[in-house]
Amino acid sequence: MRAYLAGPDVFLPDAPAQAARKSAICARHGIEALPPLNEDVASLAAMGEAQAWRSIFAKDLAMMERADLVLANLTPFRGASADAGTLVELGWFLGRGRPIFAYSNSAAPFAARSAALLAAWPDPLPGLAVGGFGLPDNLMIPGAVEAGGGGGIVLPEGDADEPFDSLRVFERCVALAARQLGLAAAP
Amino acid sequence: MRAYLAGPDVFLPDAPAQAARKSAICARHGIEALPPLNEDVASLAAMGEAQAWRSIFAKDLAMMERADLVLANLTPFRGASADAGTLVELGWFLGRGRPIFAYSNSAAPFAARSAALLAAWPDPLPGLAVGGFGLPDNLMIPGAVEAGGGGGIVLPEGDADEPFDSLRVFERCVALAARQLGLAAAP
Repeated sequence: MRAYLAGPDVFLPDAPAQAARKSAICARHGIEALPPLNEDVASLAAMGEAQAWRSIFAKDLAMMERADLVLANLTPFRGASADAGTLVELGWFLGRGRPIFAYSNSAAPFAARSAALLAAWPDPLPGLAVGGFGLPDNLMIPGAVEAGGGGGIVLPEGDADEPFDSLRVFERCVALAARQLGLAAAP
Repeated sequence: MRAYLAGPDVFLPDAPAQAARKSAICARHGIEALPPLNEDVASLAAMGEAQAWRSIFAKDLAMMERADLVLANLTPFRGASADAGTLVELGWFLGRGRPIFAYSNSAAPFAARSAALLAAWPDPLPGLAVGGFGLPDNLMIPGAVEAGGGGGIVLPEGDADEPFDSLRVFERCVALAARQLGLAAAP
């Protein structure tokens, strides 16, 4: 089984090392990881912006096509919600009907993060209640994970956030995926 | 042709009236609009949070299934990017291979909005450059729109943002969709 590793991990300064750590965890659970890295930075820079972003998009989409499932990092990124690109990818897997498993290193509910954001950032709809149904993000996101067979978004076990690049919650998410998909752990 | 009206419009205080205005614009261009409203607020409240959000998710997904295309409002909502739920829906239409047309009422590039946000909100990756390729949002988003046949995200014609609920850019987006899909305008 091949899993696309969606998430803002690609923006980490040590993205290749993080991808290697995630891939090793996946391998221990019988999953082949497909991490969407941008390895060829020099050639991307040479081709100019208009071609570079289309090249990254096409490369990521081709990798998603090859994947049997997605393991999505929904840790909030530069805002109250998960990374914007990751959300497009999550929806793609939902549209394809392929299994979706996801985690977040944030223990706080979406409503709390949204309220904090709106205290610091102009709200296009001031005065509107911030609900959130007690969920970890906009309802379309846990909805996609539940519909994709991943149950809920896997969260930190306590009330405290994990560090942004911690892999403790990721490992629980991978174990869940392997169990749900009937995969054997590596011996 | 039936178009799912994705976007944060559902959060507007006058969401039903806005949906009616959008539907009338679509009808003038030969498109039947499917706006995902939550009409039955009283029964949603009665069923409790855990059932209410699943009911909204299932209702929206069923409406997406009925749609031939999506007309997505990608105006930034409570952050530098488009609304989180809208992005999941955008990805769903990409995954299904159905036409995607989209607009934003923000004239600013994503990099400018991201930089402003990061001045006001804790950055999980401080020091990381904010690129953006000169695009209006995370590259997966214009990528999805281009792959979905909608060309680029339709933007305000000048350098100034349109008001959050303005429909001037939406109308140009609908006209583009009708033209691309070969639909006849209403007589």
